[in-house]
Amino acid sequence: MMRYFEDFAEGQVYDLGEVRVSEAEIVEFARKYDPQSFHVDPAAAQRSIFGGLIASGWHTGSMYMGLLVRGLLQGSASLGSPGVDEMRWLKPVRGGDLLRGRVTITSVKPSSKHAGRGTVGTLGELFNEQGERVFFVRSSGIFARRPR
Amino acid sequence: MMRYFEDFAEGQVYDLGEVRVSEAEIVEFARKYDPQSFHVDPAAAQRSIFGGLIASGWHTGSMYMGLLVRGLLQGSASLGSPGVDEMRWLKPVRGGDLLRGRVTITSVKPSSKHAGRGTVGTLGELFNEQGERVFFVRSSGIFARRPR
Repeated sequence: MMRYFEDFAEGQVYDLGEVRVSEAEIVEFARKYDPQSFHVDPAAAQRSIFGGLIASGWHTGSMYMGLLVRGLLQGSASLGSPGVDEMRWLKPVRGGDLLRGRVTITSVKPSSKHAGRGTVGTLGELFNEQGERVFFVRSSGIFARRPR
Repeated sequence: MMRYFEDFAEGQVYDLGEVRVSEAEIVEFARKYDPQSFHVDPAAAQRSIFGGLIASGWHTGSMYMGLLVRGLLQGSASLGSPGVDEMRWLKPVRGGDLLRGRVTITSVKPSSKHAGRGTVGTLGELFNEQGERVFFVRSSGIFARRPR
């Protein structure tokens, strides 16, 4: 069953399941994309204000995206996204953390330019096992309308 | 020479150098973090509105971060970032593209809470070889002040 633009409505909440964060992956991601010492060097991270290795915020955002795609977008007529309106890294994310994802539909707007498309606004969130919200992102996605 | 909060001023522009995008890396990143068909499946991407494989926006953001860290943050007293205020994926990014990064300092604010820190606002941008702006991100970073 394919999800189209018409299937989204303001206020819908989707549970996106969980992802376990691994310290090896934190370091592997950060070596490529964010090699600040508190993301790649355990000893330097220990001495930093974070008191140990933490995930790059871009890694955290990417893990959220993985949950969103596997939990919602893969069964949908997603046509990509124009970008992000706000993103916050609220708490450190560390190796061993189990993160649960959730997305709330915040708006639905048919496109005025493309008759066959619409924009869906989203609030995405990640929570750790202590129930703390560690991350949120306000974004939007373009979806195809259901073919007649 | 270490860069501290005091070394940043509104209007400064830093060239961050270049990164070559590889199609193999586009697919590798997307398989983990954004397995939508137009990021991982060349044939499906060909038939999509993008006409071929494009990089995940999270991959593009991460490549920008790589340039920012290697070009500026590694020689600085960076203490992380609270998040992003706006991010836009303006044009498709494809395998073979050469992206040039630039960051402009948009604000500097001493912290009212922590005497030894301040917040630096940034506008980060990526341009392709055709000179098209493909990506921008408005964000901020926390930096330590210069020790007396």
